[in-house]
Amino acid sequence: MEIKVVRKVLDVNERMAEQNRRRFAEKGIFVLNVMSSPGSGKTSVLVKSLQHMMPEIRPAVIVGDICTSNDADRLSVTGSPVVQVNTDEFGGDCHLAAHVIEKAAEDIDLDAIDLLIVENVGNLVCPAEFDIGEDARAVVLSVTEGEDKPLKYPLMFRECNAAVLNKTDLLPYLDYDIKAAEENILQIHPDMPVFKMSAKTGEGLEPWIEWIKAQIRAKKTVCKD
Amino acid sequence: MEIKVVRKVLDVNERMAEQNRRRFAEKGIFVLNVMSSPGSGKTSVLVKSLQHMMPEIRPAVIVGDICTSNDADRLSVTGSPVVQVNTDEFGGDCHLAAHVIEKAAEDIDLDAIDLLIVENVGNLVCPAEFDIGEDARAVVLSVTEGEDKPLKYPLMFRECNAAVLNKTDLLPYLDYDIKAAEENILQIHPDMPVFKMSAKTGEGLEPWIEWIKAQIRAKKTVCKD
Repeated sequence: MEIKVVRKVLDVNERMAEQNRRRFAEKGIFVLNVMSSPGSGKTSVLVKSLQHMMPEIRPAVIVGDICTSNDADRLSVTGSPVVQVNTDEFGGDCHLAAHVIEKAAEDIDLDAIDLLIVENVGNLVCPAEFDIGEDARAVVLSVTEGEDKPLKYPLMFRECNAAVLNKTDLLPYLDYDIKAAEENILQIHPDMPVFKMSAKTGEGLEPWIEWIKAQIRAKKTVCKD
Repeated sequence: MEIKVVRKVLDVNERMAEQNRRRFAEKGIFVLNVMSSPGSGKTSVLVKSLQHMMPEIRPAVIVGDICTSNDADRLSVTGSPVVQVNTDEFGGDCHLAAHVIEKAAEDIDLDAIDLLIVENVGNLVCPAEFDIGEDARAVVLSVTEGEDKPLKYPLMFRECNAAVLNKTDLLPYLDYDIKAAEENILQIHPDMPVFKMSAKTGEGLEPWIEWIKAQIRAKKTVCKD
């Protein structure tokens, strides 16, 4: 009985994710689901990325946290529309589900954006299990977190389309083998692009921005056809 | 129906946790459930702690990860008995449950230890929801993770009995307000002991070790009565 119910919940989520995906595709919007551990610097990466992309790219962000609107407050300074979701309103969920994205998207003018970024709840496990109707997924890993995280949390790295290795400005002060970290990522997901950067200094941001822009262009081309 | 099933799972877990708790109490063992985000330095804190406590204290460790035995390998160098649990064998669980601890404890000689440390799966959300039969819970937070984590993941900080602020050796290189972090912890859980330390340098380890030793002594006193 338990297995059946879990299956049912996932089926419902999958159906809603497909609905979201169709809706965003109709509008030519590229949807990027950004996931990581708590404290990897997701919000800092996104703030810097939005500042670099705007106004050429017109983004919006849905940001998920169990509590607080801290991340939405930080993202709002970019001028991008931001919708904060607090999962404690429905039980403190450890991830965002498709129906939450559908509801949050009601507060966004989908005709006025090219890019919808979903900053998921800080968690390297559960969010990878839930399709929210995104086009691509990115995982942010801080270099303070150790080189073995891809091997310990393989689903996340298997499910993502790009990885960001953040906080490279701290490398001189860490016993961290960034080459080993990258090799571990590629062992789980060969050919995945790995972007090494410091959101704090801005170093290494450019290739990541170019990757996002290329995805947006590809989406617009597909949607026009 | 869904709610009923979830309720049932939690009821079963609670019953098994109580069984574990009784069994460990009979043996006079203090059980500490250590939780954190991935990459906070839990394993490093525990390696250093075991080295400081042994042989005065006789510990054992159950370490949970989705994949790999990296943490068990690192913990084993202390000479402490270590049991690695890989949750990918039963679906990639994002936390340890009471029945997992019961099974893992079968591989430990409970007559030969005073302290059982459970290093939970790296996740600041879900492990806090599962009683495993522990006596106390500790959360490890790295100073690279930002000051606001207690406010964003309040359940974890509410449920724990002690907090470790790790990686203080990196403070000179971070824009991190350790006083604000401590205030945020105390806002969620007033009077919770907060141990600031660097597992790397060993600085600040002593008060944390003393806290654990006091818990072990208290447990032995209660169990003798």
